[in-house]
Amino acid sequence: MTHRLNRRKFLQYTGMAGTALLLPGKGTAGSYPTLASDEIGLSKWELETPSLCLELEVMEKNLKKVHYKLAGSGIGVRPHIKTHKCPALAQMQLDAGAVGVCAAKLSESEIMLENGISQVLMTGVNVSPVKIKKAMALRKKYPGFIQAVDNPVNAQDLQDAAKAAGIIAEVVVDLDVIKRSGVRTGLPALELAQQIDRSPNLRFMGILAYDGGAQHVKGYAARKARTDQTFEPVVATYESMVKSGLNVEIFSGAGTGTYDMMGDVPGFTDVQVGSYLFMDAQYMAIGSEENEELYDHFDPSLTVMTTVINTNYPGRLITDSGAKALTINKPSGIVIGEPGFTYNAGSDEYGTVTYSEANRDYKVGDRLEVIVPHCDPAINLYDRIYGIRRGKVEMVLPVLARGMSR
Amino acid sequence: MTHRLNRRKFLQYTGMAGTALLLPGKGTAGSYPTLASDEIGLSKWELETPSLCLELEVMEKNLKKVHYKLAGSGIGVRPHIKTHKCPALAQMQLDAGAVGVCAAKLSESEIMLENGISQVLMTGVNVSPVKIKKAMALRKKYPGFIQAVDNPVNAQDLQDAAKAAGIIAEVVVDLDVIKRSGVRTGLPALELAQQIDRSPNLRFMGILAYDGGAQHVKGYAARKARTDQTFEPVVATYESMVKSGLNVEIFSGAGTGTYDMMGDVPGFTDVQVGSYLFMDAQYMAIGSEENEELYDHFDPSLTVMTTVINTNYPGRLITDSGAKALTINKPSGIVIGEPGFTYNAGSDEYGTVTYSEANRDYKVGDRLEVIVPHCDPAINLYDRIYGIRRGKVEMVLPVLARGMSR
Repeated sequence: MTHRLNRRKFLQYTGMAGTALLLPGKGTAGSYPTLASDEIGLSKWELETPSLCLELEVMEKNLKKVHYKLAGSGIGVRPHIKTHKCPALAQMQLDAGAVGVCAAKLSESEIMLENGISQVLMTGVNVSPVKIKKAMALRKKYPGFIQAVDNPVNAQDLQDAAKAAGIIAEVVVDLDVIKRSGVRTGLPALELAQQIDRSPNLRFMGILAYDGGAQHVKGYAARKARTDQTFEPVVATYESMVKSGLNVEIFSGAGTGTYDMMGDVPGFTDVQVGSYLFMDAQYMAIGSEENEELYDHFDPSLTVMTTVINTNYPGRLITDSGAKALTINKPSGIVIGEPGFTYNAGSDEYGTVTYSEANRDYKVGDRLEVIVPHCDPAINLYDRIYGIRRGKVEMVLPVLARGMSR
Repeated sequence: MTHRLNRRKFLQYTGMAGTALLLPGKGTAGSYPTLASDEIGLSKWELETPSLCLELEVMEKNLKKVHYKLAGSGIGVRPHIKTHKCPALAQMQLDAGAVGVCAAKLSESEIMLENGISQVLMTGVNVSPVKIKKAMALRKKYPGFIQAVDNPVNAQDLQDAAKAAGIIAEVVVDLDVIKRSGVRTGLPALELAQQIDRSPNLRFMGILAYDGGAQHVKGYAARKARTDQTFEPVVATYESMVKSGLNVEIFSGAGTGTYDMMGDVPGFTDVQVGSYLFMDAQYMAIGSEENEELYDHFDPSLTVMTTVINTNYPGRLITDSGAKALTINKPSGIVIGEPGFTYNAGSDEYGTVTYSEANRDYKVGDRLEVIVPHCDPAINLYDRIYGIRRGKVEMVLPVLARGMSR
């Protein structure tokens, strides 16, 4: 089923058809699915805690900056919504010029598609008959849904299900780059792509090569070296596919840690960045090409507001935000404005801040604003994100795909 | 406001008034808030994954066993619902003889009270004016709601709010035993209790002394030694309160790891066990008095069903359940029936199982059943728990307080 994109399809894939661009400086409330709430208008310091807050101006800069950084490279952006699980944010990403979004799971994909996100590439595979059937029903309803496959048996199952559903389903081949998901690069991948291409009810669209392990390698040089190594067999696989006559429309991979390393990869089409919108303590620690100490391509926009609830001991504050509010990921959350604070979220219900120096005195009831350790699992703990502008709640964004791990 | 319990109040506190006891062997669906679902009747092996499953027979044994173990000790059970966040399970605990339940947060307490759980002791403090006001409104509506306090300013705030609400609010003093929450033991605690007792709109009910750090100390002897040490100043504080004429109706503390160590603590009334219903890899590892290798007072009832999605490498299975399905707590999840398996849930979306020996061959699509690393934060990832009996879904329990960290 080798084919070329027509213009209509191109517009559809690039997300440019019918949707308004996000205008610089324009307020974004209203055009996205947001929640009515009597908390709108409150100062972020008045919110009950723990609350997950998003500085909209910072987020909007990050949203644009990834496109600015990639301008002229020919590489597109296909943000991974596993990070935020929020259709409103996905819509902002599409409006900013994303070619579509990625989703990790079927239930996440469904939430996105049913909430107006028309271009969804599911990077995980569906292997159970029930999920495969659901996925094909979803594709029947939403033509912009692309599925991944990583083994020949599964490809046949997808073919059978697509036939039963009476559709031709778009499929990408996920490549094994870190011994996690994916088909082995080289001949196994080529043969799987050819099998799909021969399948009357499947349409081969391209390949995925996401090196999840590379994203948090500390130091630009080390990260780049690893990425180059990862992509050697991937590129060879890509070239074998092109040589065999396959139409590799999608060659997707990379994340927030490696999005700027893909320029020399032949045929590469788009980066699957997710954390770039928010940043977190993990990504801040990896360093960039220009700044080995702090990864500063994007600025931290996502925080948890927390309340000091106990001050019994000097150099020690207890807060109401523990593992259920921040996760136990490392490095720990970063208290804004207090570089000397160490935040321990190891208790389920309580946070413990220790310090030898503080910039002010703290008493019970005071709030702290904490940059999250790792944005993806932290957001997955919350039903809503408070969109903050100039210190006040401008919108409440529902995390509709929270907990959607199926 | 020193007072004695009347009989009606006693019945109310012991949860024996008006509710049916859980009959041995009786099916429990129908008497609890459960969800209608077309998954009822499915084999647990047919559930889409990840799914959180609860073996009802095992859970029911655990539910009874804690009462059996404490029979004759005069010590009651006040289960902590921070573990399960599920009103249906709280109701089962009350029906089994619990004197009430504990909740960590105000939002959790609200969910419990509004779903028929009449006796809720909130172990965390409310320090913000909004939360204090809400708490008093909740107490006005639900007389079985008891609040905690751990500093004199907060006690005055509670007095003012109770007065404004036109109620007399029941209050316990949380004692500082692990430099986390609580007022310092000794004179500060005594004075706080006396301040509450003098407050016209507060009713002093007793003390909390939960040593969260003791629960997972490995080895019964070490755990007991630590607990004895923790309770020395706690008991002295209790005795000073009694001596000063305070009526300490509640002296609550201990968890699943120390519930059987309270027999010699004078005046101690109830244990705040939570994990006993489910067990998990963390608790299984601590050992009991009778078995230093495996803590076997309660049996594991809670598992995540997961699917093998990739088998590229020998001795390695990739599953669809990573950190968002199991958390990254250690020790890792335990694959039932495969003692040689090591489960790594360090990836957000994927689990990686490694082994040198397996009891069977595994192919893509096969299911694994995994005992969770730490039950509290794992349950907090799910909206529903599948209640399983004889291998089939008997009921679907909504985790109504999931994400309620405020």
